[in-house]
Amino acid sequence: MIAHSAAIDSGSSKSGTRYKLNTPALVLDLDAFERNLASMAAAMRGFGRNLRPHAKSHKCTRIAQAQADAGAVGLCCATLDEAEIMAAAGIRGILITSPVTTEIKILRLVDLVRRGADVMIVADHASNVSALDHAAQAAGIRLPVLVDVELGFGRTGVLTVDAAETLAHQIKTSAALTYKGLQAYGGHLQHIADYARRRALTEQAHRFVATIVDRLVASGLRPQLISGGGTGTSMIDGRTGPLSEIQAGSYIFMDAEYEAISYGEGQVWPYECALFVQTAVISANQAGAVTTDAGTKAFALNGPIPRIVTPGLENAAYEYAGDEHGRVRLEPGMPTPKLGDRIECVVPHCDPTVVLYDAFHCVRGDSIVDVWPIGARGRLVLAP
Amino acid sequence: MIAHSAAIDSGSSKSGTRYKLNTPALVLDLDAFERNLASMAAAMRGFGRNLRPHAKSHKCTRIAQAQADAGAVGLCCATLDEAEIMAAAGIRGILITSPVTTEIKILRLVDLVRRGADVMIVADHASNVSALDHAAQAAGIRLPVLVDVELGFGRTGVLTVDAAETLAHQIKTSAALTYKGLQAYGGHLQHIADYARRRALTEQAHRFVATIVDRLVASGLRPQLISGGGTGTSMIDGRTGPLSEIQAGSYIFMDAEYEAISYGEGQVWPYECALFVQTAVISANQAGAVTTDAGTKAFALNGPIPRIVTPGLENAAYEYAGDEHGRVRLEPGMPTPKLGDRIECVVPHCDPTVVLYDAFHCVRGDSIVDVWPIGARGRLVLAP
Repeated sequence: MIAHSAAIDSGSSKSGTRYKLNTPALVLDLDAFERNLASMAAAMRGFGRNLRPHAKSHKCTRIAQAQADAGAVGLCCATLDEAEIMAAAGIRGILITSPVTTEIKILRLVDLVRRGADVMIVADHASNVSALDHAAQAAGIRLPVLVDVELGFGRTGVLTVDAAETLAHQIKTSAALTYKGLQAYGGHLQHIADYARRRALTEQAHRFVATIVDRLVASGLRPQLISGGGTGTSMIDGRTGPLSEIQAGSYIFMDAEYEAISYGEGQVWPYECALFVQTAVISANQAGAVTTDAGTKAFALNGPIPRIVTPGLENAAYEYAGDEHGRVRLEPGMPTPKLGDRIECVVPHCDPTVVLYDAFHCVRGDSIVDVWPIGARGRLVLAP
Repeated sequence: MIAHSAAIDSGSSKSGTRYKLNTPALVLDLDAFERNLASMAAAMRGFGRNLRPHAKSHKCTRIAQAQADAGAVGLCCATLDEAEIMAAAGIRGILITSPVTTEIKILRLVDLVRRGADVMIVADHASNVSALDHAAQAAGIRLPVLVDVELGFGRTGVLTVDAAETLAHQIKTSAALTYKGLQAYGGHLQHIADYARRRALTEQAHRFVATIVDRLVASGLRPQLISGGGTGTSMIDGRTGPLSEIQAGSYIFMDAEYEAISYGEGQVWPYECALFVQTAVISANQAGAVTTDAGTKAFALNGPIPRIVTPGLENAAYEYAGDEHGRVRLEPGMPTPKLGDRIECVVPHCDPTVVLYDAFHCVRGDSIVDVWPIGARGRLVLAP
């Protein structure tokens, strides 16, 4: 269990917290967030690795800027939309971590670079590399490209050492592309609960990447960047293996999903829960339960249930009771929340919960001190 | 199975559809949508019941206006935020279907009415009725209130005939409240797969509501409105029982969840799938599968898997492969989609999928003809 460091008014206030939001609302505890920022930055400095944190977790230019200020070498983006918004906010060193394959998006990508953005892209297929090269030539720019390597998730990336070498060679010899190196991200490794197994599989992935690197070096294709890793494997990727930089995202927030697994052998997570949903009680007619206004439109479902942090209710179970309703099961001895009382929860899974909201309500102790828009969520871009 | 009525280009076009969007993107087939609108309106007219469709499904003022134009008596809203946005667009006859219990929201509610909005609210507790009355008095307005009745979901509403009568009496004798009647919505009844069981439980709920109505009439508290029902029980609620109006929402879109259950004994759904997600292939290195750009940030997870409608791939299974990735499993004989090809899916569960997007791309046949913002999603309102 990780403490909720925002001050909670468990005394005379009717609501349970002193900041009262338009529930359901997303709360970012800035003190905890800043400690998380500093902790990951220090860990990666200690390991001698770069940090290129992932914007898919926050989709927020204010957080991206805070990560840059804390020493990040750039920013990963899962989508072109994220990259456009982050570049417009002045963020440099952007790496788009999935292939961009539609005609429209390839045009937008090269246009983004043409307008001065510092953006790299990954590719895993010869036809995509050709399409990127043609578009970059037509736009009169050079586009930096990394070979995406598959590590066992079965999602994107080249599958073999030969394929990696062939694609790296194609990129390097393309007229308008700059060969930058490799991306090797194991999304399936991040949440393996058993640390020994997570480490074994991560180190197995390291060996595969190292084999590719050896081949590339032998072929005159030495990668400048080897980008990968996430919050769940960051300590393993930091201590050992070939990655030059880590793509962690969730460390700034933590969530119930990461809380449920161990950080390392006998070690507690150096990251605190900083992201909460504030909900309010809207019905209290049932025996042994109250109904809240936060259901499946307020929490991502691909994680554990929300963990309640409101004093006295820490052991109450949260249940979903529809898209707009939650249910808090009360046990004997627990305080019975009244209508309008606020209940706060650690989010189940941070990334897909964040995209359900317009903004982070930034709090310090008892006060809302800022509101940070989640600008890259659900973005609409019409075809040109 | 229900046909996808948008024209699909299965021929020479590389992409599979003629409208090419910023994937993942939400597509509304306007022809199917309009047929659904007309079909439900005609069904309710035939039954002699009013239709007050639910905005929680669409959160879109353009759709609310289309429903009003098709004869709806008003609009249900799940949240105060939805009601504020719909009222600002000129929608009348708004019923907020969950209690509003925090101080801030009660102030916003009475202010909305003070500024001329036509809004009703439900309540299920004496303390909430008192709070609403005090706020309405202070604002110098009259607030119309319905007693919310619990039908077995264990969520909101009074539990007994006595409690319903007591609360109705309190509302009727409150200085600034207008007693309007009952809300009796069984969210747990809508998706019961077995029609006979759905009908039996719905009729059991009808009997409970009828008992309450009898008591209210005997006590001089005859309800003007008895509001409830949804898409799943609409035919049962139409044919029989005490509801004066139906709150259906999903009928305009349909989804894989409703497709999976029967409409009635031996009857097919009179509603067509009108809502789709367009995704694009971003990787094709795996044997027997391609990777798309639509994962758990693109589809609601509390429903069946997305049903693919792209010609040739109708029997391919869609899997989630992370927050930003999907996987389409290919079987022998299926066409192999190429990088950048578009694949369209019926959404798993419409309401919580809609809130993941900024707008509906409205199509007729091959063309995008309009873009309708999903204005009431993820809305931020700071405390006054």
